[in-house]
Amino acid sequence: MTDYTLHYAPDNASLIIRLALEAQGVAYDTCLVDRAAQGQSAPAYRALNPHGLIPALQTPDGPLFETGAILLWLADRHGGLAPAATDATRADFLKWLFFVANTVHPALRMLFYPEKYVGVDDAAQDALHTTVTQALQTHLRRLEDRAAADTLPLALALYLAPLLRWCALYPRNRDRGWFDLRATPHLHALCARVETLPCTAAAQTAEGLGPTPFTAPHLATPPIGSAT
Amino acid sequence: MTDYTLHYAPDNASLIIRLALEAQGVAYDTCLVDRAAQGQSAPAYRALNPHGLIPALQTPDGPLFETGAILLWLADRHGGLAPAATDATRADFLKWLFFVANTVHPALRMLFYPEKYVGVDDAAQDALHTTVTQALQTHLRRLEDRAAADTLPLALALYLAPLLRWCALYPRNRDRGWFDLRATPHLHALCARVETLPCTAAAQTAEGLGPTPFTAPHLATPPIGSAT
Repeated sequence: MTDYTLHYAPDNASLIIRLALEAQGVAYDTCLVDRAAQGQSAPAYRALNPHGLIPALQTPDGPLFETGAILLWLADRHGGLAPAATDATRADFLKWLFFVANTVHPALRMLFYPEKYVGVDDAAQDALHTTVTQALQTHLRRLEDRAAADTLPLALALYLAPLLRWCALYPRNRDRGWFDLRATPHLHALCARVETLPCTAAAQTAEGLGPTPFTAPHLATPPIGSAT
Repeated sequence: MTDYTLHYAPDNASLIIRLALEAQGVAYDTCLVDRAAQGQSAPAYRALNPHGLIPALQTPDGPLFETGAILLWLADRHGGLAPAATDATRADFLKWLFFVANTVHPALRMLFYPEKYVGVDDAAQDALHTTVTQALQTHLRRLEDRAAADTLPLALALYLAPLLRWCALYPRNRDRGWFDLRATPHLHALCARVETLPCTAAAQTAEGLGPTPFTAPHLATPPIGSAT
């Protein structure tokens, strides 16, 4: 029994929190959310996260949700991921953390789950896909510029590497030619860096991510649970 | 000359930061971003915020952007807005701050600027409007539940009151009957509370917000600049 329980599904946003906990060397238990059975909508899970999204992290200070919030809270509580609140680089860290959490991560949700934004009409989904992929290309260029200027804090690297992985893999029913990690060499280097970290080895084993999960990803083959 | 310059447009997201600075009693200068002349796209502004969004806050630690990031940074630097990082209620604060910044605020952007998400097709815009307003009703019910359980930290109240104002006012070309602040009595009380604070009086004068800017808002009539 540890202080933390990570409620996760393989290769979901919970992967970002698993990487962070592993990188910090913080002990945690895991609890699989069975997406195939809509486990994220079950009353017990909604008591942890009323929005029914994955991940949730049980802590001694109560349940936490929102990937960005959990990352930031862990960074401040256990160190090793990001500048401290008194550091002169905290401002830079926070603005890019919120940009990723507010803008890049929601854009991926629009890309993967268009029906949640425009319903089931094909033309509306096509329109959303077109504008969101264009916006994402702009967002990734700005992140590339930021990564080129100075090494991103580990918390941001651990957030971005999975998001870039999912751009390469999803959605399955669309052409993904809009995305080319090699077009953003500093983001490619970031993925290569995260790929060699021990935290990634742990996540590869637990979630079946395969040999090159960030630079050349394949669909997860998790030992238990379902990614979608 | 102060330590801070807030780059703002009247009744834009910069209002949230103005309220925070005023509530903290922190001295700041302002610099109007001329939206009517697309000032947010000018090179000088892009140097502060490459994404071209309002607000940006110049600080001794460099320029900050993203409303949530600025709020959190100010809270930690000057106090008075939110639980400290070591506080047991920090986790709860962060998860709701990120929820508002990740989910509620982006949903408002979709509602107000549908063309940025689905282009100019009327049917696609209608589909987006329908699903986003439904999602927002759910989000506001969850915020109502949270506000009913315990008083929200001031940072969240100052973030939410303007968002609720804009739900009542925008977009001008759509029926806004989906939104009724009285249907969420604890959020109504939050707006009434923020409305009586001295920080709101300062913002009313500077940005022309009128007499009841959060409980019964009218379009801003700013002394200088343009809200849209």
